[in-house]
Amino acid sequence: MARIPGARIAALGHHLPDAVLTSEDVGRRVGVAPEWIIARTGIRRRHRAAADETVADMATAAARHALRRLPTAPPLDAVIVATSTAESPMPAVAARVGARLGLDEPVAFDVNAACAGFCTALAVADGLVRAGASAGALVIGADRPTAWLDWADRDTAVLFGDGAGAAVVLPHTERAIGPVLWGSLGERADAVGIDPDTRTLHQQGRAVYRWATGLGPIARRTCERGGLPPEKLAAFVPHQANLRIITALARSLDLDAEAVATDVVDTGNTIAATVPIALSRLVERGGAGPGDTVLLFGFGAGLSYAGQLVTL
Amino acid sequence: MARIPGARIAALGHHLPDAVLTSEDVGRRVGVAPEWIIARTGIRRRHRAAADETVADMATAAARHALRRLPTAPPLDAVIVATSTAESPMPAVAARVGARLGLDEPVAFDVNAACAGFCTALAVADGLVRAGASAGALVIGADRPTAWLDWADRDTAVLFGDGAGAAVVLPHTERAIGPVLWGSLGERADAVGIDPDTRTLHQQGRAVYRWATGLGPIARRTCERGGLPPEKLAAFVPHQANLRIITALARSLDLDAEAVATDVVDTGNTIAATVPIALSRLVERGGAGPGDTVLLFGFGAGLSYAGQLVTL
Repeated sequence: MARIPGARIAALGHHLPDAVLTSEDVGRRVGVAPEWIIARTGIRRRHRAAADETVADMATAAARHALRRLPTAPPLDAVIVATSTAESPMPAVAARVGARLGLDEPVAFDVNAACAGFCTALAVADGLVRAGASAGALVIGADRPTAWLDWADRDTAVLFGDGAGAAVVLPHTERAIGPVLWGSLGERADAVGIDPDTRTLHQQGRAVYRWATGLGPIARRTCERGGLPPEKLAAFVPHQANLRIITALARSLDLDAEAVATDVVDTGNTIAATVPIALSRLVERGGAGPGDTVLLFGFGAGLSYAGQLVTL
Repeated sequence: MARIPGARIAALGHHLPDAVLTSEDVGRRVGVAPEWIIARTGIRRRHRAAADETVADMATAAARHALRRLPTAPPLDAVIVATSTAESPMPAVAARVGARLGLDEPVAFDVNAACAGFCTALAVADGLVRAGASAGALVIGADRPTAWLDWADRDTAVLFGDGAGAAVVLPHTERAIGPVLWGSLGERADAVGIDPDTRTLHQQGRAVYRWATGLGPIARRTCERGGLPPEKLAAFVPHQANLRIITALARSLDLDAEAVATDVVDTGNTIAATVPIALSRLVERGGAGPGDTVLLFGFGAGLSYAGQLVTL
């Protein structure tokens, strides 16, 4: 069997639910001023899935968006959905998505690495394509955290929004998806997650903030591993948790503000969906194009992180 | 970067909780005779996790069992847990397991492909090792379905048990983990799963039974893909859902009864854990050893399936 030299992202798509919650809306609900939310998080608005709009619905919509951007249907035999907020823990969201897209018995599984999920799933797909185990994979990040919020916990409830982003990953003559740098600090697994009893999202905000703002050296090492210094990046697409974390990471990479995705301002934290949504929108608005290299970098519950360079 | 030719399973381990529920116990609870359970399913006993014994606890115990079987600590940088019954959807079970094992910032994520989960995660690990993205991975199947049972649904409640199985996957000079055959029929995603409202396991028993007993040709194709005819198998280790399904699959592969794992009789269906538990016990009792090739074959909710040949 011939070895596949590399893989690339051939198309991107995203989906954001129709309903928008502004920071005025959320502030009223949790009893704080919108300015308090915006000053602490940068988030002005986020989308919220309708009561009957599932993670699979959003994932399918994002995938269709990506597929519409290709001239012909790619040879997809794998669907990987990164999610941590599915309505049910079984079966996998990916199985429903594969069927709705009309794919022919694709392998379909979900990957759970929380906010590092998309970059993790992208590395998994890259590995499967390069190892010859997949001829083409849909990699989707899709989450619906608003279904898991404790609205009495204002520090957490103001942060999240729903959405999905998708990438079509195909074999390529070069490694356009670069080597992944990933890891976890499971001894801090209780710092952020969904409480098994209350079934709501909680986080130790200050501890997570301190950890996340200190990830600059790991983001820099991800660039080194991919063989491109940060100053050569067309864009930095970090997990969209909070504008202050993004700004701190960008500063530690010595990046100009215009090279950094800040979709959090109008999407909030969509967990595994932030990176592909931001990347899809970046390409859509012409902020990066063919030949450009961007740094994707996810981090969050676990605590876990995963990142890689991607040449478009 | 040098390509890794293949990967192998260097060690196996398993964990079954202390508490045993016999089919007498379960029969009393759901109001049927134990003979009714045994005749329909073959299941005589299953293990049940204690109230405070989590999926991460079982996964960690199985991993430790596998690691004790190696003379020295392997270079593990990845922990992949196949599960569909974690107490919480976030963070991933794998992150906790990696920390408890004392691994140094391993990538850690969960894979959800229900009862096909272990074989799916094994293929993912094989891809990552061969692609050079992991120097060694722990692949664990761990599930705790008894926490999700509707005891009023006797057709489903009698089937399940808790447990975990683990495999240490390392680079190898040959492809001792063979090419995967995997797929899904997501249009039948409602046939088996956890109801998002009641949060209990349900299944369309007859439909799933009919589908599963018809998977013989796919199991046979998995052997073809791996380059070994079924009659050369040292053992067939299918998902342990029901003794009648196992018997039907073994018959369609023309296998003698002694070559087929039937752990379901005293473990019940432990979802993603059945295949690694059965494989670990098979090796433990000397039913297969170094150089022997076995067929692993998982199938279940999704509907999904995944299988591969493994040379021990």
